Amino acid sequence: MSAPQHQELDPKLDLMVERIVRVSPERAWAAWTEPEHLRQWYAPSPGVISDCEIDLRPGGVFRFVPRQPDGVEHHVLCCYLEVVPYRRLVWTDALLPGYRPAPTGFFTAVMTLEPQGESTLCTTVALHRNEADRNNHVEMGFYDGWGTVLDQLGAYAPSM
Amino acid sequence: MSAPQHQELDPKLDLMVERIVRVSPERAWAAWTEPEHLRQWYAPSPGVISDCEIDLRPGGVFRFVPRQPDGVEHHVLCCYLEVVPYRRLVWTDALLPGYRPAPTGFFTAVMTLEPQGESTLCTTVALHRNEADRNNHVEMGFYDGWGTVLDQLGAYAPSM
Repeated sequence: MSAPQHQELDPKLDLMVERIVRVSPERAWAAWTEPEHLRQWYAPSPGVISDCEIDLRPGGVFRFVPRQPDGVEHHVLCCYLEVVPYRRLVWTDALLPGYRPAPTGFFTAVMTLEPQGESTLCTTVALHRNEADRNNHVEMGFYDGWGTVLDQLGAYAPSM
Repeated sequence: MSAPQHQELDPKLDLMVERIVRVSPERAWAAWTEPEHLRQWYAPSPGVISDCEIDLRPGGVFRFVPRQPDGVEHHVLCCYLEVVPYRRLVWTDALLPGYRPAPTGFFTAVMTLEPQGESTLCTTVALHRNEADRNNHVEMGFYDGWGTVLDQLGAYAPSM
């Protein structure tokens, strides 16, 4: 695996998954940034995204609600930090929208898109404050979760 | 006092100080963003800034070291979030440079500049995650500290 552009990786603190998606960076970007698209793939199946709110600007809200088949919902509230269309999207749950420090929160996500012929390399990195948070994220199912949704992105995006 | 542009204020969670500085927004911006200037006014006298590092971009480092007359130094490491030249500067100690969640950290600062004739209204707002953090910040001397340094900015900037 190669490190994504502009993002140094610390293997003790960070987690990464990447997939080739058979669409252009522009379409992959739309899948990541438009709620009607994000809802189609961002929860590991058979879960669904029951609600999603996106204000696509630094300081803007990124809120989504994965719902498991048993009806349990998990409300996730993040703040976008960087928005570089078709290239790079950064958000964190350590700050609320508007940048206020969050009561809880433990990761920053850096998603990058790189054209690869007619496809796109989509890389997501999760940055943590310490090894314990990183390892907890693995135990919470990081690879299954983020890996599965990137597979779902790959299956969904060509049909958009 | 008026709320600064684009920054909603929650009086239970936020703290604000503002001062009229008798220079242009461009010069006030230089005072905030160039280490050789910042070092001249950013520590409440008789303290000094013994070191300062600025990488003026979202995700860049804002590091400074206030030194008290007895030699005690306090190392402060922040991450810039928004850089809008001559208008608005946002940074937090809740994220490290590069956006990694910080081990500690409790505030986000929003500094705005608004031209007022030949002077500039400089407003600084500190956002906190809860009332306890806000009140601790007051007890730590927020008004004396931030108020004093803005007075020092007002005295220094016209001589730049």
